[in-house]
Amino acid sequence: MSAPGAHASGEDSLIARYFKPLATDPGAFGLTDDAAILKALGGDIVVTTDALVEGVHFLPDDPPDTIAQKALRVNLSDLAAKGADPAGFVLALALPKVDEAWLADFARGLGADATSFGCPLLGGDTVSTPGPLMISITAFGRVPPGKMVHRSGAKPGDQVVVTGTIGDAALGLDILKRGKVAAALAGDALSRELLVGRYRVPQPRNALASAIRAHAHAAMDVSDGLAGDLAKLCAASGVSAVIDLKSVPLSPAASKALAAGAVGLAEIVSGGDDYEVLCAVPPDASEQFSRMAEVAGVAVSPIGTIIAGESAPKWLDEEGKELPLAHTSYSHF
Amino acid sequence: MSAPGAHASGEDSLIARYFKPLATDPGAFGLTDDAAILKALGGDIVVTTDALVEGVHFLPDDPPDTIAQKALRVNLSDLAAKGADPAGFVLALALPKVDEAWLADFARGLGADATSFGCPLLGGDTVSTPGPLMISITAFGRVPPGKMVHRSGAKPGDQVVVTGTIGDAALGLDILKRGKVAAALAGDALSRELLVGRYRVPQPRNALASAIRAHAHAAMDVSDGLAGDLAKLCAASGVSAVIDLKSVPLSPAASKALAAGAVGLAEIVSGGDDYEVLCAVPPDASEQFSRMAEVAGVAVSPIGTIIAGESAPKWLDEEGKELPLAHTSYSHF
Repeated sequence: MSAPGAHASGEDSLIARYFKPLATDPGAFGLTDDAAILKALGGDIVVTTDALVEGVHFLPDDPPDTIAQKALRVNLSDLAAKGADPAGFVLALALPKVDEAWLADFARGLGADATSFGCPLLGGDTVSTPGPLMISITAFGRVPPGKMVHRSGAKPGDQVVVTGTIGDAALGLDILKRGKVAAALAGDALSRELLVGRYRVPQPRNALASAIRAHAHAAMDVSDGLAGDLAKLCAASGVSAVIDLKSVPLSPAASKALAAGAVGLAEIVSGGDDYEVLCAVPPDASEQFSRMAEVAGVAVSPIGTIIAGESAPKWLDEEGKELPLAHTSYSHF
Repeated sequence: MSAPGAHASGEDSLIARYFKPLATDPGAFGLTDDAAILKALGGDIVVTTDALVEGVHFLPDDPPDTIAQKALRVNLSDLAAKGADPAGFVLALALPKVDEAWLADFARGLGADATSFGCPLLGGDTVSTPGPLMISITAFGRVPPGKMVHRSGAKPGDQVVVTGTIGDAALGLDILKRGKVAAALAGDALSRELLVGRYRVPQPRNALASAIRAHAHAAMDVSDGLAGDLAKLCAASGVSAVIDLKSVPLSPAASKALAAGAVGLAEIVSGGDDYEVLCAVPPDASEQFSRMAEVAGVAVSPIGTIIAGESAPKWLDEEGKELPLAHTSYSHF
């Protein structure tokens, strides 16, 4: 990515117009060079990358500013779960055509998030494609040396904690696809809007990063479904877990869809795109963790306990009956 | 990117099979976590990103190992030109289908280059796409603090130097598309093979990074055509240049195509995909730079001089006549 020189190409002028204003970090060199500089500032650099494809990760008629926000936020969510503070990102953008209005909205959404999350654009690449629009973002965070929080590290006795509410995004997608949830909430525009908003614009929990770093034994973000992601965290830690289904935090809109029978609990805990944080917090740190979460303005809910063993985590209802889960998470292949 | 847990999905098992063996750096955590750790080791981290789209940057029937090599090498080329030593990379891969044989070859090519260039896979994301295959790589390098070599910095009197030979890749693409060059070299399989090889597998000049860091006032890699890229370097430096066309280094195969009239010099100096390094070396460092290049085994050719001024660089033939250039570089839009 580079700004126009003496012989500005169409590509260079697009970049200068829409993306240069986002490159506020001195290490981005105003997008006038071939590479950026990232300073570690004495810590470790945490690197994460997530790609979004039109029709797979977002819908063609999603508003462009929300597409940009989602592309950045899914990466910010990984940084949050690793206990890292955002440091910047690079963007690879494959465009089927140049739609200036679309690009202006996309850059506006991206710029607003770059500012509010303190995660400036460092560089990128803009290419043409005969296929669907694709956005690939690699984001960087900083942690003190050796302090990245891993998937592994959960210990028997730890509380299993999740942020926010679970399942909303999957219900939002169902609404956009005019599924059962759309029908059940036909008379409730507010709930529909909330759920669609949760699908389009995740709320990454970066405000909680320092609490996770300070207190969590293990953490990951919930992107492919809570049940599957918990299974991954447990496998990486060599433990199992028992979850109390009624403790899983649901939004009023999700509760309404559940009560109406438009969706089951199994679908809620295995739906994708939550972008909440799942973590294992030792009992003696639980109070301090909750206090830090409250100060950060992030709701956290204990939903169960890590136990010894290698079996799949158990999801129990109020009568102690196990919820059968057919598919615990989303897979591309 | 993550390796399989208790409930391995298709995606996880693909990653474990093909990409985990490439994640040799301890900071990659064997692709079992949500993010990687990159240590700055007291220096600056140089970040560059380049995306390749099937049908745009490579042809659908290019061998998968060469596609992987090209995807990594175009990024390595940027690191070389910035004077940075490779530290690792992350990969976002959008696949229209799962073709195990293709993936095995792709991973083999990628792994061979990761090893030979000392640039291990740190992490990534594998997603499905209804469109063409796309590969987005973000690569990292290390330089001592403040020592990244910029596009800006060239000064009047500096020698303009390029590595390797110019124009081969564009001629190779013409051969694959059965153009004029293919016809002119119909009887010369060796030349055709060499040019096609230069299109498919660039030779990034990472062996020259320390010489560039030590001696170049300014540098960039030549990816969109030498003439356009020189214009960009001059614009960024606030200077101009005079180039001696007969000094531009050509391979025997390119010379043959030129002599046969299948291509003109203007096309050679504005064809893309060279992935050579263009740099400005002050006269008093020229001898030492050449010596270091010889030790590194990289051919370097002085092709002209940086001069004061803001006009476009001049490309002069043996009679001092200026070569007219219609399009100096490739642009996606």
